[in-house]
Amino acid sequence: MQVLFQYNWQVRNNWLKWCEQLSEEELLVERKGGVGNILHTLLHIIDVEYSWIRGLKGESDYEVDFSEYKTVESVKSLSDSLQIEIKQYLESWSNEMEYENVKVSWNEEEYMKGEILRHIIAHEIHHIGQLSVWSRELGLRPVSANLIGRGLMNK
Amino acid sequence: MQVLFQYNWQVRNNWLKWCEQLSEEELLVERKGGVGNILHTLLHIIDVEYSWIRGLKGESDYEVDFSEYKTVESVKSLSDSLQIEIKQYLESWSNEMEYENVKVSWNEEEYMKGEILRHIIAHEIHHIGQLSVWSRELGLRPVSANLIGRGLMNK
Repeated sequence: MQVLFQYNWQVRNNWLKWCEQLSEEELLVERKGGVGNILHTLLHIIDVEYSWIRGLKGESDYEVDFSEYKTVESVKSLSDSLQIEIKQYLESWSNEMEYENVKVSWNEEEYMKGEILRHIIAHEIHHIGQLSVWSRELGLRPVSANLIGRGLMNK
Repeated sequence: MQVLFQYNWQVRNNWLKWCEQLSEEELLVERKGGVGNILHTLLHIIDVEYSWIRGLKGESDYEVDFSEYKTVESVKSLSDSLQIEIKQYLESWSNEMEYENVKVSWNEEEYMKGEILRHIIAHEIHHIGQLSVWSRELGLRPVSANLIGRGLMNK
């Protein structure tokens, strides 16, 4: 599971780098699907990942004020800072936790911890797929989504 | 890992059902990104998944003639039939296989089996994200990408 998180973080950083070629207007202009624009789709990925990790730890929801994030740098900075805590949590993960039930503050249902971890992974990959269409619509080459060849299993 | 395959197959079937509301023209009209149209993006997912599974088993590449697939039924039928063999392979999977090296016929590189399995998973989720943008562009509600709440861990 950690390999898939590492994959997501590499791809996310590639996309944040890709964003640097766009103007603030292009990053924030309304588009169909996703969270409505490029930068806030990336911000949403970060927000959702961290909120669920907090939920897994029995902590309260984390709310991001989207209006505060209008630059790639600000989003990258948030991503980097939150990953420290997320990495610590993933390093403490063990197979016995897979089927442990947990209830998070913003949802009535009870889920298994392993289910939430996979939800976070799939959530990011899904939104990244959306960015790739917007990229083609802009006439730009999207970031590679390939997982093979990144040496992720060697770590 | 099997949970993520189950997730992908549920979501894929939901999208194939979703496709039934579209005409053949809408399914095959050229769009930006993905594999260029809705139906062949789904077919590509199936093709890639099965080819890699064959590669993992040391078998030759599987080539799909895309021109033969112009209806949702034909794509669904292929998906269902190939899943039988894929399920058997996944049921034979063990943790020791994660770091085993394998070379597939269509690629010069050697990869670890666990890396390929994760590549297949991420590949499908990524393309499904693309479908969700095209869906919104058509003014249609996309299939849910949520992994939680599907009871996938109970099986």
